[in-house]
Amino acid sequence: MPETRQSATDYQAHFRGALDRLHGERRYRVFADIERVAGRFPTALWRQSDGTSRAITVWCSNDYLGMGQHPDVVAALTETARRVGVGAGGTRNIAGNTSPLVDLERELADLHGKEAALVFTSGYVSNQAGLSTIARLIPDCLILSDAFNHNSMIEGVRQSGCDKAIFRHNDLGHLEALLRAAAGRPTLVAFESVYSMDGDVSPIGAICDLAERYGAMTYLDEVHAVGLYGPRGGGIAERDGVMHRVDVIEGTLAKGFGVVGGYITGSAALCDAVRSHAPGFIFTTALPPAVAAAATASIRHLKGSGAEREAHQRQAALTKAALAAAGLPVLATDTHIVPVMVGDAEACKAAADRLLERHGIYIQPINYPTVPRGTERLRITPSPFHGEAHIAHLTEALAEVWDALALPRAGTVFAEAAE
Amino acid sequence: MPETRQSATDYQAHFRGALDRLHGERRYRVFADIERVAGRFPTALWRQSDGTSRAITVWCSNDYLGMGQHPDVVAALTETARRVGVGAGGTRNIAGNTSPLVDLERELADLHGKEAALVFTSGYVSNQAGLSTIARLIPDCLILSDAFNHNSMIEGVRQSGCDKAIFRHNDLGHLEALLRAAAGRPTLVAFESVYSMDGDVSPIGAICDLAERYGAMTYLDEVHAVGLYGPRGGGIAERDGVMHRVDVIEGTLAKGFGVVGGYITGSAALCDAVRSHAPGFIFTTALPPAVAAAATASIRHLKGSGAEREAHQRQAALTKAALAAAGLPVLATDTHIVPVMVGDAEACKAAADRLLERHGIYIQPINYPTVPRGTERLRITPSPFHGEAHIAHLTEALAEVWDALALPRAGTVFAEAAE
Ligand SMILES: Cc1ncc(COP(=O)(O)O)c(C=O)c1O
Ligand SMILES: Cc1ncc(COP(=O)(O)O)c(C=O)c1O
Repeated sequence: MPETRQSATDYQAHFRGALDRLHGERRYRVFADIERVAGRFPTALWRQSDGTSRAITVWCSNDYLGMGQHPDVVAALTETARRVGVGAGGTRNIAGNTSPLVDLERELADLHGKEAALVFTSGYVSNQAGLSTIARLIPDCLILSDAFNHNSMIEGVRQSGCDKAIFRHNDLGHLEALLRAAAGRPTLVAFESVYSMDGDVSPIGAICDLAERYGAMTYLDEVHAVGLYGPRGGGIAERDGVMHRVDVIEGTLAKGFGVVGGYITGSAALCDAVRSHAPGFIFTTALPPAVAAAATASIRHLKGSGAEREAHQRQAALTKAALAAAGLPVLATDTHIVPVMVGDAEACKAAADRLLERHGIYIQPINYPTVPRGTERLRITPSPFHGEAHIAHLTEALAEVWDALALPRAGTVFAEAAE
Repeated sequence: MPETRQSATDYQAHFRGALDRLHGERRYRVFADIERVAGRFPTALWRQSDGTSRAITVWCSNDYLGMGQHPDVVAALTETARRVGVGAGGTRNIAGNTSPLVDLERELADLHGKEAALVFTSGYVSNQAGLSTIARLIPDCLILSDAFNHNSMIEGVRQSGCDKAIFRHNDLGHLEALLRAAAGRPTLVAFESVYSMDGDVSPIGAICDLAERYGAMTYLDEVHAVGLYGPRGGGIAERDGVMHRVDVIEGTLAKGFGVVGGYITGSAALCDAVRSHAPGFIFTTALPPAVAAAATASIRHLKGSGAEREAHQRQAALTKAALAAAGLPVLATDTHIVPVMVGDAEACKAAADRLLERHGIYIQPINYPTVPRGTERLRITPSPFHGEAHIAHLTEALAEVWDALALPRAGTVFAEAAE
């Protein structure tokens, strides 16, 4: 009888087959093995397959401000670990609700001017668990979701099991049409502030206008903006003076703040209800107290200091100007994100490989499914620590690579992303 | 027109309503605010609502061996953070694939005798993303899932979108009937080794026998066993000599190892395919390098030292014996987990409150939905650091509470869990 069954080896064939398909589509990803060096950001060590290491410059980190190496942040982590140990030792409910985590939530609520905050193990989980739980708690909820929303929000929408409709990216007319069609039904509008791959910004105030007009609730992902925008680092909503009009603000501790973890902020009842109902919050070990303390130190520093934000915007602007002057196809953005378009997966990977091997510059190629096919790119993220010499070196290196590989120059029209 | 719409205030009413229902069912959870003290585990500081702190003894931590305060583990965290900073700075694909994380995966593959390992931000995410992705990569996969599987596995099964059937907890006859009925269809059997609430153990070898006979694949959650069982801490499968027969072993870095994070181990093709396809792995910031280094230090220590495991089992056995001798309704277990049954949500909470306030003993009440209604309990987790004096104090305190609240004694038959 067992003869007719699929043997264990066949399972392996499925996994190998899935990998073969990725190789066939030139979508197989190789991760560069990188060792950061505190105090020398954006310099890092690239560990090669033969075990030797080489100093390189990282130009694609999402530790946007280099806060991961900030002395206050490192000190908060190490001092807390020495005082209380490493792990939390339990879920939030069972022995894992440590004081540094409670303090972090207070800090986050204050950052966004909300009654409460709730910390998750990551920004991904905060969207997935937060969005799905909020929507499920609202009977007959309809979710209106921006077409470019991040995978974690898409998974949250899916997991909610609620009806959904997708509005065209940042398209207020389309959103209004959907709100009007929703005709009195409870509705949750889910969108981001800074879209991380194109670096464009949503009209938060105008979306709030619509939500208020039609009685909808708003859920805003500020993952690529917290720490980076607004007088205290509260994000684009703070910068635009509309933070109080957004019902739920979600963010990460892993990018602008340079640590790890994610959160939502909102009313006390909302956060308490999510705390009490979200499986992805309830059934998992809490973030280590030392990590929470490091995040709190980072948030506190950036609440009081605008210097990092100013330097960040300045270096990003200088980088964009230098690359554009060299005739490279830089996507025009209003933010710190500098996409240089390639438009082909294989060429994108070849460019990244050449940059790393020839020039010691690390920029991971961004291919499908992270961006639509035909819009493959190098996504460059200047930080306050990328100085003039770094920018000059980057510009020369990119020009050399663009010449050597005959890549498309400024003026080329790429698929969807070029609009 | 907007008049007929639901106003923002109504959304708040939904959240408040959800909380009211929890209060009404006596299921509203209050988290104790705890500060651990490295080097003094299981002593911790309980921060009360008035801001003052009081020293208490934690008896419900899942830092089972106290590895969270182990000097090697704390040193690995602090030294790595000083050297490389705090956050990973990106997803695994984009600048976040740090050397300590690569090394950790090698250590985990070795621990379980597998070709490869893949680290996730938590054990929860490793089950949710790992199980769903593996099942999706197998065309027409049927998942057979133990009835007592953890919520993270249930969510993984759900997210896979595959057909599923639930077999009665640890019931080999029922599992075989389902395998036979599956009739040649690719099948994934998902189960745990130590079930954390009842502390019972699955017959891994016998489940592998069935899986091999019927050509099914096996996925084993060893979250409550890694570090704790087996000559090198590989878990129950290592202890039973069947590790090589299990296709996928999943574990956490947050309990026996005392840090945070989760993983799967298996064939190189399987791990590579999950790495390449699991959204919950791809679209999230990697675990911080310092956290990875701390986990590696913990695993290495426990591979070489059995002293913690021996002391753990010894103190757990002493605790069980002392509580049973006092006539308390201890659930008989073969493991380090010591459930003391209460059988009622309100009584369970009252017992925990009295233990904490009168006796300075912290044991979180375990109520529905973590366990079935009628099987509410205090779940006690002795560690190598819970000495004779701690055990004597616990026994006296529980006896006092049981008398004062007239709670059920040994011999009482509780709902489902008593079988
Ligand atoms: C828009 C957006 N939301 C959420 C996340 C997830 O955040 P985290 O990395 O903290 O999981 C990301 C990227 O990682 C993101 O780009
Ligand atoms: C059986 C089981 N699997 C997985 C998990 C999740 O592990 P983690 O806490 O690392 O998210 C838990 C509990 O937390 C568990 O009990």
